[in-house]
Amino acid sequence: MSISDRASAGVYKDEGIPALKEWLKSAIAAPQWRDETRLIADEQALIESTLCELVDVKGCSLVLTTGGTGPARRDVTPEATLAVADKVMPGFGEQMRAVSLKYVPTAILSRQVAVIRKNSLIINLPGQPKAIRETLDGVFAAVPYCVDLIGGPYIETNDAVVKAFRPKSASRPK
Amino acid sequence: MSISDRASAGVYKDEGIPALKEWLKSAIAAPQWRDETRLIADEQALIESTLCELVDVKGCSLVLTTGGTGPARRDVTPEATLAVADKVMPGFGEQMRAVSLKYVPTAILSRQVAVIRKNSLIINLPGQPKAIRETLDGVFAAVPYCVDLIGGPYIETNDAVVKAFRPKSASRPK
Amino acid sequence: MSISDRASAGVYKDEGIPALKEWLKSAIAAPQWRDETRLIADEQALIESTLCELVDVKGCSLVLTTGGTGPARRDVTPEATLAVADKVMPGFGEQMRAVSLKYVPTAILSRQVAVIRKNSLIINLPGQPKAIRETLDGVFAAVPYCVDLIGGPYIETNDAVVKAFRPKSASRPK
Repeated sequence: MSISDRASAGVYKDEGIPALKEWLKSAIAAPQWRDETRLIADEQALIESTLCELVDVKGCSLVLTTGGTGPARRDVTPEATLAVADKVMPGFGEQMRAVSLKYVPTAILSRQVAVIRKNSLIINLPGQPKAIRETLDGVFAAVPYCVDLIGGPYIETNDAVVKAFRPKSASRPK
Repeated sequence: MSISDRASAGVYKDEGIPALKEWLKSAIAAPQWRDETRLIADEQALIESTLCELVDVKGCSLVLTTGGTGPARRDVTPEATLAVADKVMPGFGEQMRAVSLKYVPTAILSRQVAVIRKNSLIINLPGQPKAIRETLDGVFAAVPYCVDLIGGPYIETNDAVVKAFRPKSASRPK
Repeated sequence: MSISDRASAGVYKDEGIPALKEWLKSAIAAPQWRDETRLIADEQALIESTLCELVDVKGCSLVLTTGGTGPARRDVTPEATLAVADKVMPGFGEQMRAVSLKYVPTAILSRQVAVIRKNSLIINLPGQPKAIRETLDGVFAAVPYCVDLIGGPYIETNDAVVKAFRPKSASRPK
């Protein structure tokens, strides 16, 4: 799900969703997953209703957003994400900023959050394809176990791209 | 104080409190401290009332919780802790996750917080004995000075385990 | 803007504002910037109204506070800052604590936050001159681009002290 006033208005081409899809395709081993994509404007009410639709109606277990996490007035993705949250997951935002900080000092300006809504994990990602890949490389190892814990499907990863980590106590459901 | 549905129901033996007690016994040098222990279920209202009892009635200067900080629906320790907080101490959660991340990538799933209530510091710790020790090793050096600042007793540490840090401007009260 | 009960009452000399001014003078290259200084007590309502005056009336694009971010009862600078915020910038607090942690383990006790209010970036800094310089060294590279994004003036830095980072896509306005 990409959030951008200009891309959603056709002013320029969205690059977030292709970058997201390409990374997920390379990282997730199981063939049976499928995605729903949305390209919307930076309007808080619209972001909130789209997140709710993807979780509550479409039943997505993982929702990745791209864009709208900076300090500018129109950047409201984190506010919309927090507004629909059951639980806040502060470790994702901290770690994504720490990872991006290895590349650019302005990583601290990103306000990315991650939350749980019902049985879904929602993670805000940066808007730039390069930064999307860097942060997914940095945090995705923890995503499959998180999805296990909230009652989602068992995600298998392609270990050459990212290796899902699960504690020894976590056994695969039959 | 250990928070676990199954341990409190006797389904399995709580390992959090023994790990906590052992670590504190080795780390705190002064012989006159004493502890109050509680083993309760993952119920937010119960966690809140137990925290309030330990701080307001028992006068504990330091309350350590273990368990209930993950993303699952029943994990509500952080919410209960924030609900009884006078002040939030974000640095503890950040640093505990950073420390745990050296051991397991799923450390970012921990939602641990620390807060001040009245004259007490409340810190959420992980549930596993190994992770409890690792995070206490990582943050406890700052605990005695924090307890000083909120009007609690002067805590002396066993430097072989952890060395309390106080700025030079902080002098021991007579 | 320095927040201290004792310094504002004249019990001791404020050292925060001189440290701040000296650092900014060395780091900002453009000669045309000017500062407004305030020295006030640790009263939440007073801190809030002073922040609002600096942003709303004086039009400051960057407000740096020093002091009042610890765990003690009178330390309320973060609460006052959050109370006047339009947006919260979690990366600043995280990174300032991470930087200070290289010097002292008690850095995790600092509750510093940064926020956006209207067209202004407000950052809480520590109270000690040495810690002020260390944290500014650690985060200021991201400040000029942040001020760009919220509609403030173009800040040029003295690269020998700190080098402002802007992505290649960000061009200087004519």
